[in-house]
Amino acid sequence: MKQLAGLLVLLFAGCAGMAVRGYAAETSMAPSHGISYPVGWRNWAVIAVSHRTDNKTSRVILGNDTAVKAARSGKTNPWPDGAVLAKVVWKDTQLKDWKAATVPGTFVHAEFMFKDAAKYSESHGWGWARWVGLEQKPFEKGMQVCIACHAPVKDRDWVFTDPAILP
Amino acid sequence: MKQLAGLLVLLFAGCAGMAVRGYAAETSMAPSHGISYPVGWRNWAVIAVSHRTDNKTSRVILGNDTAVKAARSGKTNPWPDGAVLAKVVWKDTQLKDWKAATVPGTFVHAEFMFKDAAKYSESHGWGWARWVGLEQKPFEKGMQVCIACHAPVKDRDWVFTDPAILP
Repeated sequence: MKQLAGLLVLLFAGCAGMAVRGYAAETSMAPSHGISYPVGWRNWAVIAVSHRTDNKTSRVILGNDTAVKAARSGKTNPWPDGAVLAKVVWKDTQLKDWKAATVPGTFVHAEFMFKDAAKYSESHGWGWARWVGLEQKPFEKGMQVCIACHAPVKDRDWVFTDPAILP
Repeated sequence: MKQLAGLLVLLFAGCAGMAVRGYAAETSMAPSHGISYPVGWRNWAVIAVSHRTDNKTSRVILGNDTAVKAARSGKTNPWPDGAVLAKVVWKDTQLKDWKAATVPGTFVHAEFMFKDAAKYSESHGWGWARWVGLEQKPFEKGMQVCIACHAPVKDRDWVFTDPAILP
């Protein structure tokens, strides 16, 4: 009985490990706009990519389980409470061995939208946060900076991304 | 005791669900070049992105656990046995609400490299496979088609991708 209980604990730990794959430092990151650092985002599944030719950046858009499920079932207007979207941004560079390929160079920042219609009712249902540079310094200039840029998509629940079509 | 055994089964099922998130159809896909369809790749973590301006396609490069671990610890020349790399390819389109952003349009194909130095000694240590279109039709024109294109990176263990830098 005691052995089985021990086994249960190990199994739970194994599950958590699969989902998160220990980034110990993440848990001590400072919050951005009062929002805690989203532990484990590097292993979230992909929702889309984008290449901005105006500011020469390459991006991948990831989501937590709730966001990915919503994206892949087309339930994104509105996105469900609990969905978290990550946009990971790099400066463009050219692939050395295939000149016509633009690929990620210097890491710029990782920015996040946390959906909670009630909690974030004053910022259109989303918590907006960003951590800058490899040191992941929290962005603290206010959610309005993020919201202003997203105004063109206010009728799309404030999200630019169309989930990429998957087979 | 019987109840605990049942609980264990449920926990295992839960773990598997977290990792794979049931794509039942995947298990019945036809092989490409004799290689089985890699179940669960849609939820693999990201290694990089790329935008090919020559053929106007957007790409995301994903990896299984072994590949992601190797990518994030810089152990990629050679990649370890068991690593699987996925390149997911879409035709470019323009984001309606941000014209300077190129984003994924029509899905083209998902192609994979399976590392096993012994098993695939005749194809440079990799198994090369591709599934085309939303119906995921297996590509069967021979691994040489893939290898010919990757020749410029034969000294990089035949892989174009530089893992994107993450904080």
